[in-house]
Amino acid sequence: MRNLSIALALIFLFVGRSFAEDREISSATADCLSCHATSTPGIVSDWKRSRHSRVTPSEAVRRPKLEKRLSAETVPESVYGVVIGCAECHTAYPRQHEDSYRHNGYIVHTVVTPRDCAVCHPVEEEQYGQNIMSHAYGNLMNNPVFRGLSENINAVVSYDGTGTKLSAPDPETQDDSCLVCHGTVVKMNGLRTVDTVQGEMDLPVFSGWPNLGVGRVNPDGSVGACTPCHSRHQFSIELARKPYACQKCHKGPDVPAYQVYSVSRHGNIFDALNKEWDFQAVPWVLGKDFASPTCAACHVSLTVNEDGEVLGERTHKMTDRKAWRLFGLIYAHPEPKSPDTTVIRNAVGLPLPTEFTGEPASGYLIDAAEQQTRRETMQKVCLGCHSTGWVAGHYKRLDHTIGTSNELTKTATKIMVKAWNTGVAKGMARSDSMFNEWIEKVWVSQWLFYANSVRLASAMAGADYGVFENGRWFMTKNIERLADWLDVKSKSRSASPGSGK
Amino acid sequence: MRNLSIALALIFLFVGRSFAEDREISSATADCLSCHATSTPGIVSDWKRSRHSRVTPSEAVRRPKLEKRLSAETVPESVYGVVIGCAECHTAYPRQHEDSYRHNGYIVHTVVTPRDCAVCHPVEEEQYGQNIMSHAYGNLMNNPVFRGLSENINAVVSYDGTGTKLSAPDPETQDDSCLVCHGTVVKMNGLRTVDTVQGEMDLPVFSGWPNLGVGRVNPDGSVGACTPCHSRHQFSIELARKPYACQKCHKGPDVPAYQVYSVSRHGNIFDALNKEWDFQAVPWVLGKDFASPTCAACHVSLTVNEDGEVLGERTHKMTDRKAWRLFGLIYAHPEPKSPDTTVIRNAVGLPLPTEFTGEPASGYLIDAAEQQTRRETMQKVCLGCHSTGWVAGHYKRLDHTIGTSNELTKTATKIMVKAWNTGVAKGMARSDSMFNEWIEKVWVSQWLFYANSVRLASAMAGADYGVFENGRWFMTKNIERLADWLDVKSKSRSASPGSGK
Amino acid sequence: MRNLSIALALIFLFVGRSFAEDREISSATADCLSCHATSTPGIVSDWKRSRHSRVTPSEAVRRPKLEKRLSAETVPESVYGVVIGCAECHTAYPRQHEDSYRHNGYIVHTVVTPRDCAVCHPVEEEQYGQNIMSHAYGNLMNNPVFRGLSENINAVVSYDGTGTKLSAPDPETQDDSCLVCHGTVVKMNGLRTVDTVQGEMDLPVFSGWPNLGVGRVNPDGSVGACTPCHSRHQFSIELARKPYACQKCHKGPDVPAYQVYSVSRHGNIFDALNKEWDFQAVPWVLGKDFASPTCAACHVSLTVNEDGEVLGERTHKMTDRKAWRLFGLIYAHPEPKSPDTTVIRNAVGLPLPTEFTGEPASGYLIDAAEQQTRRETMQKVCLGCHSTGWVAGHYKRLDHTIGTSNELTKTATKIMVKAWNTGVAKGMARSDSMFNEWIEKVWVSQWLFYANSVRLASAMAGADYGVFENGRWFMTKNIERLADWLDVKSKSRSASPGSGK
Repeated sequence: MRNLSIALALIFLFVGRSFAEDREISSATADCLSCHATSTPGIVSDWKRSRHSRVTPSEAVRRPKLEKRLSAETVPESVYGVVIGCAECHTAYPRQHEDSYRHNGYIVHTVVTPRDCAVCHPVEEEQYGQNIMSHAYGNLMNNPVFRGLSENINAVVSYDGTGTKLSAPDPETQDDSCLVCHGTVVKMNGLRTVDTVQGEMDLPVFSGWPNLGVGRVNPDGSVGACTPCHSRHQFSIELARKPYACQKCHKGPDVPAYQVYSVSRHGNIFDALNKEWDFQAVPWVLGKDFASPTCAACHVSLTVNEDGEVLGERTHKMTDRKAWRLFGLIYAHPEPKSPDTTVIRNAVGLPLPTEFTGEPASGYLIDAAEQQTRRETMQKVCLGCHSTGWVAGHYKRLDHTIGTSNELTKTATKIMVKAWNTGVAKGMARSDSMFNEWIEKVWVSQWLFYANSVRLASAMAGADYGVFENGRWFMTKNIERLADWLDVKSKSRSASPGSGK
Repeated sequence: MRNLSIALALIFLFVGRSFAEDREISSATADCLSCHATSTPGIVSDWKRSRHSRVTPSEAVRRPKLEKRLSAETVPESVYGVVIGCAECHTAYPRQHEDSYRHNGYIVHTVVTPRDCAVCHPVEEEQYGQNIMSHAYGNLMNNPVFRGLSENINAVVSYDGTGTKLSAPDPETQDDSCLVCHGTVVKMNGLRTVDTVQGEMDLPVFSGWPNLGVGRVNPDGSVGACTPCHSRHQFSIELARKPYACQKCHKGPDVPAYQVYSVSRHGNIFDALNKEWDFQAVPWVLGKDFASPTCAACHVSLTVNEDGEVLGERTHKMTDRKAWRLFGLIYAHPEPKSPDTTVIRNAVGLPLPTEFTGEPASGYLIDAAEQQTRRETMQKVCLGCHSTGWVAGHYKRLDHTIGTSNELTKTATKIMVKAWNTGVAKGMARSDSMFNEWIEKVWVSQWLFYANSVRLASAMAGADYGVFENGRWFMTKNIERLADWLDVKSKSRSASPGSGK
Repeated sequence: MRNLSIALALIFLFVGRSFAEDREISSATADCLSCHATSTPGIVSDWKRSRHSRVTPSEAVRRPKLEKRLSAETVPESVYGVVIGCAECHTAYPRQHEDSYRHNGYIVHTVVTPRDCAVCHPVEEEQYGQNIMSHAYGNLMNNPVFRGLSENINAVVSYDGTGTKLSAPDPETQDDSCLVCHGTVVKMNGLRTVDTVQGEMDLPVFSGWPNLGVGRVNPDGSVGACTPCHSRHQFSIELARKPYACQKCHKGPDVPAYQVYSVSRHGNIFDALNKEWDFQAVPWVLGKDFASPTCAACHVSLTVNEDGEVLGERTHKMTDRKAWRLFGLIYAHPEPKSPDTTVIRNAVGLPLPTEFTGEPASGYLIDAAEQQTRRETMQKVCLGCHSTGWVAGHYKRLDHTIGTSNELTKTATKIMVKAWNTGVAKGMARSDSMFNEWIEKVWVSQWLFYANSVRLASAMAGADYGVFENGRWFMTKNIERLADWLDVKSKSRSASPGSGK
């Protein structure tokens, strides 16, 4: 009994020391915690569970290359010997942060941004800046075509007894719809006095807040956010590696990636067996730590085999492994060169990556050689489990499906164009939106929902989404729907001459 | 080695004693178990895993206030010293139970009701009786408008070559559709002799059975059921606290709460990390036991911080924390005062909480002060993790979205009213249902599916459901759909005069 | 301390021995592993986790009857004393395998089939051959009606300015849509030289590959595949017993079994509590190993009570427990007698199990007595937890719903037939497909989506799917939609005489 006690005591001693050694909480963070442990206990607990609270950057920076969780070569002296606590992030770069304000003797800011994280994670910030996701706000709101689409979706529509009238949505509505994922413009509009559990305080008033969008425009002038995937304040790599984090924005009919994954064999295995896997290990060892890929395993993570050979390099520019942009605007096309897609112009001058007739706006898109490089980067991950024949067959099928789904978008577009040309629908030629009439929304469904679903289903072998669940069934049905409507509508017009919509 | 054995033996001894001490199974329950362990082994095993089988009410009643799992101050002598087994629930109050019958020497009843549970859980029964859910049967079936809607959904429709004819659905169909969730009327219609593994037995014949609906009308005259959330016979608090139990009824397009939660950040964190959490602890300690709310955490559970300060009081009247009824009938409106909503009359005398033009039937709904009280009750939970600015921004956005979604319902309703007024559709003015024609169902979709989805998405930050997944995309498209149909139909009528639908 | 070390050492020694004893890897498998551990590490790791890598058939065959995981009475000498590794499956029966090729000194084949698995699992192969799933390719592609439906879904549709034209889909498209689940025809078309990490190799080129469809037509002439449920190369019984494996093909609107399960009480309990259950145990003990059924528990698995009495015999002919085919073609009907449904002819000579007016093609379907046998086989599983009254009520309701949902299909079909008869739609009478026009697809939705959803919802008590989530709401709405269209279209035709679609 006594021997056992000693053994246990030694074990605890050892564990205790290995965690406690020379790690300190900065005095500023200690000050934060003294109130926030009571006023916002949930996030303090989260932080306590995080690696940020248990490892100092100076330790982390000395880990072997493959095991490093930060990318800085050196870290500033200010965080030497201390763990990363409240103050280390919320008081960094005060001059750049327009949302800085005085709070209990400190200059703090609410909105921590990629630029703050870059102190320790500069490569990730750099890569994410090249990721199309970091530009998601501008790519939607500064592109007149896409902005027009979003405004026609979120509009306040009225009816005066004869026709409908659309008013552009107010900013609050945009912030509560598209921009939840794309990111809002966060602005601090002064302070207000709030009666809190700690007494009266002057606290900031924001517009565009709260927001966890991937392309958020931050008060420090940066764009993007790390927290959509690396959720505060646990910053759990397990969360980012599991597919649930991604479903926040990738589950709608426009981009049903999560659903396709969940019906794929990869998703089935994850769902059934993942409780035995290790989602914390860096690097992530295929076979040892996990037995089926998640979104992160294919698109982001540093994965190695049991001999330590790299299958996929860590990247936060997620297009590194993607040859095609499957998301049709209005056709699937090679990935754009620039993450800022507002620079793109097609042959007729529209800020679209393809023509209405399907040809890619090639000057703005990666070329075939670059496509091949990216395809091979991804295939190296596939080959961790699959034979070359399996992988070749899979990719051949995907390329074929990109072609046929584009074809079905083209057919729908031809019918739509005829409706515009004959005046049965209005459209651009009549200085009207392409996206406001009912039949136009039927047409939009073809490329924004069904074609995307078909292609994602092909890319991840999630059959339902290629057929009956927003797949080919809807693509062919939708074409007939457009044709049937045009037929009825044309006859209705000729039967009552002089009338339009 | 010997020392280790002794240590392990002591541990087992201690654990064994702490569970076995002075707990007995009543002789009646022992009689039940003697057959049912063989004839229905699954539910006996469930019960063995339950706290009911391991803790006596007399122990449970002596726990410190925050740790109590029953709300009775005292428990009847009959259950003193015994655990809660089969007989304790299935033989209680025999005179009140019209479904009582003689079974192997006992008077038993099949359907255990909230009134039975109230022996030990009286506060929960009382609160649940004030919960709109316990009135779900009557609120649907005793309100002629809503009953009419359900009958037009579940109808048997025939076609005679010129037009359709709807017959009201039979009771079996209602029991298999709306009433699965709303609750059936359970009636015992005598006994029948059944050849069981234990020999011939006279067993009850029920109508409306099986059923696990929240507003079930029970044979003892009570309404409601505890088992939709606290599933028999494990009565696991873990089940009730996880979101899956709620999805049973809150996953359809009419009330997509589960789906919205699953794409929300709260849901993402739950899905990714909950395997480390403790769903059994009472009280439920934020940060220690769980790191992200589930449905129960926000709407029902007793939650505290690590200092034991209460964030949310336990309530089974779930409207206690809700200012608005987001579920539009046909507009979102302040919560009704009474859980029995059949008492409501709007200005034109219909049993609806709003006018067709959107104004609330204020006399029957909570006022702004009560709304504010409830909002603050919920916000106290939010503030466990979020700053005041975050919470204020969130609520401001939700209130705004309630307004705009109601506006979009109003526009659709205006077009529908015009169709009724011009006779293109029939509706009430022509003594016809508002819900049977195709175009009427298009209109119903606006408020019963899309507006609800938009508001739930706003309330829980689940973006897809506010835009493309039954959200604003469908609201604006649907309005144009109504207008386009009215246009075609009006022309079709003027082209062939004399014809209606 | 020393005592503890000894204890731990003994424990490890014991565990080590119990696994290593007299189990050998064949020299052929060792050769495979020598390269593949590096070239495809993921699947080698999977295999190492599998029972195949740890248990020899000669051991497995000696287990007590209820605990046996293979059904062979004896196993061939070639696998005596060795575990089942790469070579044991990928080099079996080389003469039968048209996909055999020479690979590093061995004759190997890529596609392992049920016939290979039957060496150790002959009963499962035999039963699965009687399972309608193994015939899924032929039942779709060799039935001209269903093949026509699939071709009209997956067609490449063009538009010439006046009308649409459908071209039958190419094989690649079929392989990427319906046949992902139904199974492709896998053919080896020679070898190609590939530059791999192991140097240049001649590797096979396949068409119809990759594929994990249940009715795959294999290069060895067999049909079916075990891997859709028993995923390579872990062959985890846990995967097959959890519902996720099934969702791969049973989640679309045509057969929403997984979704219905997930909202059912069975699914809720599984989701909330399954982490404590044992999904590996054979036999599977109700109450001890699991507390709520999964798909497998009701349809496939060998389940027993704690006394070892069998509740459900293991079967891989999953129709053994099903009285009805709920999947309407175009009506729900008694299960077909033969798993090859192409032999069926209805009264008008079509290869359909029902008439257009609903009567079953009885000669090809099981009779009422066989239905009752199968119903009772399933009910024996239900009665493991539920009372006879509960089970009787459940089945009565399901039978009723089969009737009413069939009725609603009949009504929709009557309207469709009128459209065909009056020439508003074309259909078979005009030598046209029944499935290509928009209104025909509206009609197909009635039986292929909505009626199936209603019946599955009834069978598993998943309410949403019986009402608003593709349920009765859509059935009654769809009938009105058909009627409204027919009304508009007929008027449009009479207003502009001479014109058809």
